[in-house]
Amino acid sequence: MGGRVENVGVLAMELYVPSQYVDQTELEKYNGVSPGKYTVGLGQSKMGFCSDREDIQSLCLTVLHRLIEKNNINVHDIGRLEVGTETIIDKSKSVKTFLMTLFAKEGATDIEGIDTTNACYGGTAALFNAINWVESSSWDGRKAIVVAGDIAVYGKGPARPTGGAGAVALLIGPNAPLVFDRGVRASYMAHAYDFYKPDLASEFPLVDGKLSIQCYLSALDSCYNLFCKKMRKTDPDFRGLLSLDGMLFHSPYCKLVQKSLARVCFNDFLNSPPEVREQQFPGLSKFKDYKLADTYFDRDVENAFMTYSQKLFDEKTKPSLYISRNVGNMYTPSLYGGLASYLVSKSPKELVGKKFALFSYGSGLASTMYSINICDDVSKLNGLIDSLKLSVSLLDKRESVDPAVFSDIMDLRTANYHTAPYTPTGSIDVLFPGTYYLTNIDDQRRRTYDRKV
Amino acid sequence: MGGRVENVGVLAMELYVPSQYVDQTELEKYNGVSPGKYTVGLGQSKMGFCSDREDIQSLCLTVLHRLIEKNNINVHDIGRLEVGTETIIDKSKSVKTFLMTLFAKEGATDIEGIDTTNACYGGTAALFNAINWVESSSWDGRKAIVVAGDIAVYGKGPARPTGGAGAVALLIGPNAPLVFDRGVRASYMAHAYDFYKPDLASEFPLVDGKLSIQCYLSALDSCYNLFCKKMRKTDPDFRGLLSLDGMLFHSPYCKLVQKSLARVCFNDFLNSPPEVREQQFPGLSKFKDYKLADTYFDRDVENAFMTYSQKLFDEKTKPSLYISRNVGNMYTPSLYGGLASYLVSKSPKELVGKKFALFSYGSGLASTMYSINICDDVSKLNGLIDSLKLSVSLLDKRESVDPAVFSDIMDLRTANYHTAPYTPTGSIDVLFPGTYYLTNIDDQRRRTYDRKV
Repeated sequence: MGGRVENVGVLAMELYVPSQYVDQTELEKYNGVSPGKYTVGLGQSKMGFCSDREDIQSLCLTVLHRLIEKNNINVHDIGRLEVGTETIIDKSKSVKTFLMTLFAKEGATDIEGIDTTNACYGGTAALFNAINWVESSSWDGRKAIVVAGDIAVYGKGPARPTGGAGAVALLIGPNAPLVFDRGVRASYMAHAYDFYKPDLASEFPLVDGKLSIQCYLSALDSCYNLFCKKMRKTDPDFRGLLSLDGMLFHSPYCKLVQKSLARVCFNDFLNSPPEVREQQFPGLSKFKDYKLADTYFDRDVENAFMTYSQKLFDEKTKPSLYISRNVGNMYTPSLYGGLASYLVSKSPKELVGKKFALFSYGSGLASTMYSINICDDVSKLNGLIDSLKLSVSLLDKRESVDPAVFSDIMDLRTANYHTAPYTPTGSIDVLFPGTYYLTNIDDQRRRTYDRKV
Repeated sequence: MGGRVENVGVLAMELYVPSQYVDQTELEKYNGVSPGKYTVGLGQSKMGFCSDREDIQSLCLTVLHRLIEKNNINVHDIGRLEVGTETIIDKSKSVKTFLMTLFAKEGATDIEGIDTTNACYGGTAALFNAINWVESSSWDGRKAIVVAGDIAVYGKGPARPTGGAGAVALLIGPNAPLVFDRGVRASYMAHAYDFYKPDLASEFPLVDGKLSIQCYLSALDSCYNLFCKKMRKTDPDFRGLLSLDGMLFHSPYCKLVQKSLARVCFNDFLNSPPEVREQQFPGLSKFKDYKLADTYFDRDVENAFMTYSQKLFDEKTKPSLYISRNVGNMYTPSLYGGLASYLVSKSPKELVGKKFALFSYGSGLASTMYSINICDDVSKLNGLIDSLKLSVSLLDKRESVDPAVFSDIMDLRTANYHTAPYTPTGSIDVLFPGTYYLTNIDDQRRRTYDRKV
């Protein structure tokens, strides 16, 4: 029996969002929909997007280079690099190989890991792979980096305001300020055609909206109950949401996350012993014989538990939605944007010792609930939080783009999605300093990039 | 410090190859090329292929179902399932989610892992992820399954005879008959456009043939030298190839593998102390000042070390090429077809205690050399070998197809690669019993399958 290092978790974290966004209120007007459809109905304020100057490789290069720079990482100190994405621009060559340009030039090439894909779950799978590597016999003392990035775009129509774009990079190793709980990861994996991308020549997904919500909520039911069961093996007093300081969710749009927290409370309600149910859930007894499988679209249940959970939502979940609300669905980085939002919403002193659960969901479908504990040593936390605050402050430096201009930029992306050779025409001026951008796709579809100084 | 299980490795293994093949000698005649171009120049005898009845999901379902059946696996005893493939038919939904149909119907849904992609390296990445999981704190006593599958097809022209198709499934857990060495995995990862699939609407790759060979050989140089260095940390007497009973390679075509073993000997030659060089490598001293980077296409070096290594090749590598020679390049399963070929070429008694290295290569590029030790207990080995022999014997039950008919079947595949809705027309009769096949692709590009009884 070999030894295993302790307290494996997140040592540092970097976030990148595009420098341009469209305001959802303005988009409501431009699309001629009823006021509040996007801002209240979906719970979204702003949506980040990329011009033809950015693709999945540039996004991941940008966030990785920032992580390395800001944390003075020696590339020879990295033993694993893995990418989670569903923004596929090559069916064979991984994004990771492109990221190797930052390492190979220094002679650092012995770095395991490639790309991993299942809708918005790829970043979480890459993260688990990195954790397992650090805990395995193959670990050699070096650290792992997980990069998750995506460009979420939809054709014209009701799904378009649920787009977004961004990337995160996580530095993983032992003795971390954010530590992953062991032995409690609870997954639910199944086959579903809720959201998928079988039209390889198109940048857009096929979506069965109603099925997607049902899949998300049923996966949440399964993961949450299994997570609680695993938690109680080590802590018999674990009371689910009530034992957690925060609960974070993959966020296709903020409203679904609020409904999800209500759903967690509905699970707690159904699981509660009859003798305490009325006390803990006053006025909700009429739902005691309801079944999970029958209530994915039950408005009465939804409204009752949305009302019941409002305070819990404000306290444990809402702080995690800042980036989601103001950038949109980033797909694989979405949950980690939630983590960043949660962390910067509080001071390091408030964060120490906190425990929270995270629910990762990728259509198709793959999902897991897992948990993170924040260490008790505030000094270990300061650097991570300061750095993240700097990243998140970029959101305020973005440029608002008129919906008509946004629509033109999307049209250009769509028209040239599969064109080669191709020279992008999007503005370089508008990009944040340090952003990688596409300079050319040649007749053999090889891509070249430059970095904005 | 938590405990870690010992002797993690391959508990069982299953192989699936298509039931039809084209003979390479006949293909030479049909294509009007010089005799021996494919059979001697590439070293290939037969090439397996799929009609429009099989896709990556059916291939992986077939091999996984066989593994489960033949080994009486209880699906509740599986905690991880991961797929390595570069045959992408959906940019978001993983093949793994489709495989979950075999588990979810039994209520087994808490199964981590999704798909991992980088050319022919995906299976190896999935394997390492599975090993790491078993060795991590997340392991709960259940086993992992790794599935690797691909359909390798090329447009008409000189690359077409380097196609192939197949799938493997590996059952991974502790106390295995085939055990992975710890701490010696040696990787080389870099960015290259040697072979890639950026034309998403086409089933065919873009290939820079010469660059691909250079990338493969330079990756081999790096991995082999680093592997030996890591090996010597635990065994100072480790002498590379001479300390190994076998050396297996990813096989795009058999001739490149023979050249690769020669290349390993060239590395040994350059690394050997001057005082023993002439004795160990008689007559080769004239190459002593040659550099690795200058000799990827040096015919003198290649010929000299091909001659030098002939006996070593026959002994340590050739037994691994049976499936590659008779099925073609299976991409991600290629190296594991090599492992199967090597294992069935000997009796369990001959295999016990043997040690061999494996070189995995995926263009783009990602590569690793690692090693396996066969346990000393022949009784642990018998079941695995017997089962594999049964799988490999399927090769003799295949049907030979005339090159003109093969070409028509390929034309049909190509014409309908991206068509929806689509009902395949390929023969079901020709499939092996137990083979999954595509029954329909509907207007929403959803795929349905059936299994041949």
